Amino acid sequence: MSYDFYRKHDKLLTLFLLLFLLFINGVKAQTISWKQVAPGVWKGIVGKPEAYDLLKAAGISPNIKAMNTIAKTDFPFKENRIAAKVRDNRTFLRFPLDKQEQLYGFGLNFQTVNQRGRILQLHVDHFGGSDNGRTHAPVPFYVSSTGYGVFVNTARYITVYAGTGVRKDSKDAPEEQDRNTNPDWNAQPYSDAVEIVVPTGGVEVYVFAGPTTMDAVRRFNLFNGGGCLPPRWGLGFTQRVKSLYTDEEVKKEADEFTAKGYPLDFIGLEPGWQSKSYPCSFVWDSTRFPQPAKFVSEMLQRKIRLNLWINPYVSKYSPIYKDLLPYTASHKVWNGIIPDLTLSAARKLFFGQLDNAQVKLGVSGYKIDEVDGYDNWLWPDAATFPGGISAEQMRQTFAVLCQKYSTEIFHQQNKRTYGLVRGSNAGAVSFPYVIYNDYYKHEDFITALINSGFCGVLWTPEVRASATSEEWLRRMQTVVFSPMAMINAWASGTKPWSYPEVAEKVKELASLRMQMMPYWYTAFARYHFEGVPPFRSMNLEDGFAQTSASVKGNNNLEENPYALATKKEIKDQYMAGDYLLVAPLFAGDGGRRVVLPRGKWFDFYTGTYAGNGEVITVSPGYDKIPVYVKDGAIIPMQPPMLHAPKPGEKVDIEFRHYGEKEGIYKLYDDDGESFDYEKGSYSWRMVTMKRNSKGEWIGTISEAEKNKPNTVGSVRWKHIGDK
Amino acid sequence: MSYDFYRKHDKLLTLFLLLFLLFINGVKAQTISWKQVAPGVWKGIVGKPEAYDLLKAAGISPNIKAMNTIAKTDFPFKENRIAAKVRDNRTFLRFPLDKQEQLYGFGLNFQTVNQRGRILQLHVDHFGGSDNGRTHAPVPFYVSSTGYGVFVNTARYITVYAGTGVRKDSKDAPEEQDRNTNPDWNAQPYSDAVEIVVPTGGVEVYVFAGPTTMDAVRRFNLFNGGGCLPPRWGLGFTQRVKSLYTDEEVKKEADEFTAKGYPLDFIGLEPGWQSKSYPCSFVWDSTRFPQPAKFVSEMLQRKIRLNLWINPYVSKYSPIYKDLLPYTASHKVWNGIIPDLTLSAARKLFFGQLDNAQVKLGVSGYKIDEVDGYDNWLWPDAATFPGGISAEQMRQTFAVLCQKYSTEIFHQQNKRTYGLVRGSNAGAVSFPYVIYNDYYKHEDFITALINSGFCGVLWTPEVRASATSEEWLRRMQTVVFSPMAMINAWASGTKPWSYPEVAEKVKELASLRMQMMPYWYTAFARYHFEGVPPFRSMNLEDGFAQTSASVKGNNNLEENPYALATKKEIKDQYMAGDYLLVAPLFAGDGGRRVVLPRGKWFDFYTGTYAGNGEVITVSPGYDKIPVYVKDGAIIPMQPPMLHAPKPGEKVDIEFRHYGEKEGIYKLYDDDGESFDYEKGSYSWRMVTMKRNSKGEWIGTISEAEKNKPNTVGSVRWKHIGDK
Repeated sequence: MSYDFYRKHDKLLTLFLLLFLLFINGVKAQTISWKQVAPGVWKGIVGKPEAYDLLKAAGISPNIKAMNTIAKTDFPFKENRIAAKVRDNRTFLRFPLDKQEQLYGFGLNFQTVNQRGRILQLHVDHFGGSDNGRTHAPVPFYVSSTGYGVFVNTARYITVYAGTGVRKDSKDAPEEQDRNTNPDWNAQPYSDAVEIVVPTGGVEVYVFAGPTTMDAVRRFNLFNGGGCLPPRWGLGFTQRVKSLYTDEEVKKEADEFTAKGYPLDFIGLEPGWQSKSYPCSFVWDSTRFPQPAKFVSEMLQRKIRLNLWINPYVSKYSPIYKDLLPYTASHKVWNGIIPDLTLSAARKLFFGQLDNAQVKLGVSGYKIDEVDGYDNWLWPDAATFPGGISAEQMRQTFAVLCQKYSTEIFHQQNKRTYGLVRGSNAGAVSFPYVIYNDYYKHEDFITALINSGFCGVLWTPEVRASATSEEWLRRMQTVVFSPMAMINAWASGTKPWSYPEVAEKVKELASLRMQMMPYWYTAFARYHFEGVPPFRSMNLEDGFAQTSASVKGNNNLEENPYALATKKEIKDQYMAGDYLLVAPLFAGDGGRRVVLPRGKWFDFYTGTYAGNGEVITVSPGYDKIPVYVKDGAIIPMQPPMLHAPKPGEKVDIEFRHYGEKEGIYKLYDDDGESFDYEKGSYSWRMVTMKRNSKGEWIGTISEAEKNKPNTVGSVRWKHIGDK
Repeated sequence: MSYDFYRKHDKLLTLFLLLFLLFINGVKAQTISWKQVAPGVWKGIVGKPEAYDLLKAAGISPNIKAMNTIAKTDFPFKENRIAAKVRDNRTFLRFPLDKQEQLYGFGLNFQTVNQRGRILQLHVDHFGGSDNGRTHAPVPFYVSSTGYGVFVNTARYITVYAGTGVRKDSKDAPEEQDRNTNPDWNAQPYSDAVEIVVPTGGVEVYVFAGPTTMDAVRRFNLFNGGGCLPPRWGLGFTQRVKSLYTDEEVKKEADEFTAKGYPLDFIGLEPGWQSKSYPCSFVWDSTRFPQPAKFVSEMLQRKIRLNLWINPYVSKYSPIYKDLLPYTASHKVWNGIIPDLTLSAARKLFFGQLDNAQVKLGVSGYKIDEVDGYDNWLWPDAATFPGGISAEQMRQTFAVLCQKYSTEIFHQQNKRTYGLVRGSNAGAVSFPYVIYNDYYKHEDFITALINSGFCGVLWTPEVRASATSEEWLRRMQTVVFSPMAMINAWASGTKPWSYPEVAEKVKELASLRMQMMPYWYTAFARYHFEGVPPFRSMNLEDGFAQTSASVKGNNNLEENPYALATKKEIKDQYMAGDYLLVAPLFAGDGGRRVVLPRGKWFDFYTGTYAGNGEVITVSPGYDKIPVYVKDGAIIPMQPPMLHAPKPGEKVDIEFRHYGEKEGIYKLYDDDGESFDYEKGSYSWRMVTMKRNSKGEWIGTISEAEKNKPNTVGSVRWKHIGDK
């Protein structure tokens, strides 16, 4: 056929072509039928979802009762604005995106908060230095600044185009620009959709209503069962000791903390506690720990709990090896066999060993390493697992399975745990684990802390060693305002007092952490019962302007050939609990800018008025991490203690009130260690601070509930502030 | 079931489990039936391969005749050592890997040569700074140091584990090590397989026999139709001018080259030649180029050809826009529509426009930009194309289709072209395009040049601008020993003489490039007719020890927690043509080590003996790039010229002989511009250099063949060397 023939008959040929294409592709955009499965949560099914997915791996139980307390609302936009099609054994999803809308989430990112305009392939892995979807917890959930969330329930690697593609048929398409003549030519034109490719023939999609972005996050967390509630001791201080320490060295180190007056609640033992590691035996090393039961008990007498490092790759020297072998993967990790944790036989053997040899002796938790990546030693996607799920699905959920079933050991004993894990995913919101990694950039650790709040995970900006005492202090300042206050000295052997110039400052910080325990504990109770993340982005805060500024690219086309714009965003300050805005400084910083949301904010240390909906600049010197308190805040403080209070131990509380507004606060209380709160054995005490007729601030606290744990000793009230 | 029950009945339960698993998985390792499809090339089919693949996209025609001249050999190992299974709509392939075997290829990598132990997801994209499979030409082909090659013929993103996974059932598994006590514990234990995951239910696999690694490369190239043969002018010098240059400025620049005595064969015009760019109109801009036919002809009178920049995204202002619209993708790139080049209607419109508006005027080639990535502006994988192939398949082959069909325009006119392209893949070996990118690290540019020879593509280490005159000279030194000697001044406007301190040196280098044209042209003829890559790795050279040393990881576990070993490999020297070993220096280098393969090597400039199978250290100063010549080499040189000879123009040749061995060389000849060589209109002239009875070196050249082009004028012989 000649070119002319084509030109003459183009309309007819186009019609034929289109009919032909419909025929060969067999693709129709599907109408998704949405079903409300929990208050403000809708589920839509596209194609044939797989039998195994993230929520099934985690075995979630939504907290419907709590979700009912969030404002009722409809589907957040017209249902037909979500499009889906299945083709070529892949599922293609499209979600709407308005012009000013910003997107947050997609897992534990380290360098960026606003994800609009980014492309990610969500894949459980160590963080490799850039936010590309490969991260410890690549949770396929995002929230929008306009107040809703979307979750794709798949244990596959999905590709997310978070507002990059521009379609021909878009009703809201950008205008063409000529790069030859238009200096405003933009390499990334406006896109009106989030597009997601799921590499299977179907998937479940969930939409979470707002009305606010925080409400969407809360619905997601509560749908997953609510956040974890750590034991009180989990919020104290923890030190991880050198890998080959003996029992005597561990005891000595614990005693040193006490002697020097540094608080300590649990010590982490690294690979050397085991007779073999990488792969692991899950058996105490008889030379370093000849009498483990005695050792654990001696530590508990010191009020120090133990957390044990493991990775779930089983050595041939482990007592469970032979029995476990049939229930393991085709491949090995460091020559250790990989239990298929979807099989109950494998779980009974693997977690049975932990239970019998460690937990039953009194060990309080685990650090579960290398369940994330990286590819060079984890099983390849070509591996097979006897339970039948694919290597890819196992990769996406292995860390979740480890969290779930290790938590169950402790649950059976009605003792809470609070551990560390290197990987996670959706569904794991309720598991008491904090994510960590080997990366060590302080700034990025804070950005990770911010992002953790969008995706139902916890993150610790652990400190290991530092180049200078300034860096040590700066890192310690953020450690104490985080979900787990940890020094990880497995390789360095660093102690809190290792930098003499700042040793006293570090002790003060550690004491502050302990004094704030009632505040942290209540914040976690809010996470558990109400879905509010204890550490979170400014973007979830009322009065914070959720905008994102682009700075035009430079004109040096040699170095930036597409004149790409740079995004400016707030990724170095965060909210901690209900009232505190934390604005860290990093080694070398003389001062910093702090963005205060609308409403009055006060200095945490002095109560001085700091600002209202404005950007302030502060230079607090080495000693202080800038922290600001919301107007009307009440912060409960206990006396400085070296260890968390025991169950039933009464602790005096000073309620500090800030600012000008009257304060209303709910203080959470329970026994601090058991799961009895699940059966109702907890209380919320109502605390208020109001002016009396003379203008004096007067505090009240509601009566303790009958037959509920009550750990509040004497109470004091203190108004802090100059206005 | 209790744990005890499991332990008692473990054998029975295991049996049940295994039967159950066989049932639910339905997976059997497939036996592949291998069929020899060309001399030393076997094809195996696994599952149901897709209708569209890399070789179909390129439409290859194997050069069976040439392949017959390579030594006959059997399947390179036992056929059953390749395992395959299809499961879960993915194909899992496994290839054997012996202990000392090294692997090369997997496309255009920039920082590594030896790929053993690496994990790659092959995905056409710009190079993003690390070798992870995302590159301009992620060719799914590798060769082994033991002398064979493997090619996976799929236009999908495949994941390659190049010797990382360790299987439980491996007969050659590494021993378990205890990291607690063994200082030699290794984070990456020995793996005995290459494992590949193809995300579809079947695939074609090809095995290429040796016996040498070079033979396997040659078979691959010849199976793809043989390498491209550029026109002679393509091997001259090229300058790309600033984007918004007018016709007068272009002519002026050409005249400046002549006036200053710098050789020049073609000029590249950047986006500004078009009336609209990003997206493109494919129409001359009437203000900058009011009389394009006249302009092209005036340039040709100057013996300067024109190469035009395009990207294949069509502006609504283009004359083909309306007709093309039905044959374009669902998505746009920079608001330009994307022609579906698998549809002949789209091709006729798109390439018809190039042909009618430019090639028919005498334009000699194109620079096809942005057919690689990156994701932020290319179509997402969620896009659809009216021809029915997926967005992923289009991504993997778009650049190949652009090369294939643009070459056809020129083929129809029986005029060769030699252009630039930003993407490629398997199948494109015979297309006359050189890959380039925006990245600009000189060292990595050389590593890319080395790797290009493993995967049937060409790469230019183009120079743009430099921080210092030293850097300019160092970069120029490698530019002249590369497939395309190019200054890309689209943004900077740099000229060869822009750094006055080295302007004369640059002129000498450019002259050297021109003098060596017969050598380069013959090297490309070898590529075309015999499959030997003109620029290639030392690992393809006889006498080069193909080993790879690992250096044990440092003991600072804070910074290298897995004590990862570092790989040392030769990635900064390469072979150019049959005889030359090029060992570049980079800005700041005072000297360097050069690894000389076994056999005697001589200095290119002086003929001095340099060494034999040893590592030498050289410090040649700024002026010289170290180049070594193989014993017995014959290098044909023409006089310095400003432009390549015209068809039929006779050129005097000096044959330079190096070393002690007698020389035998085949000089290729044809008209240099047409495709008549495809019909046999070419010749190989046999050239020898031997000592006579007096010990003097005497050269001979065979008679010119009758009725064949003969461009050899007078010949001279020169023995260079002190031994």
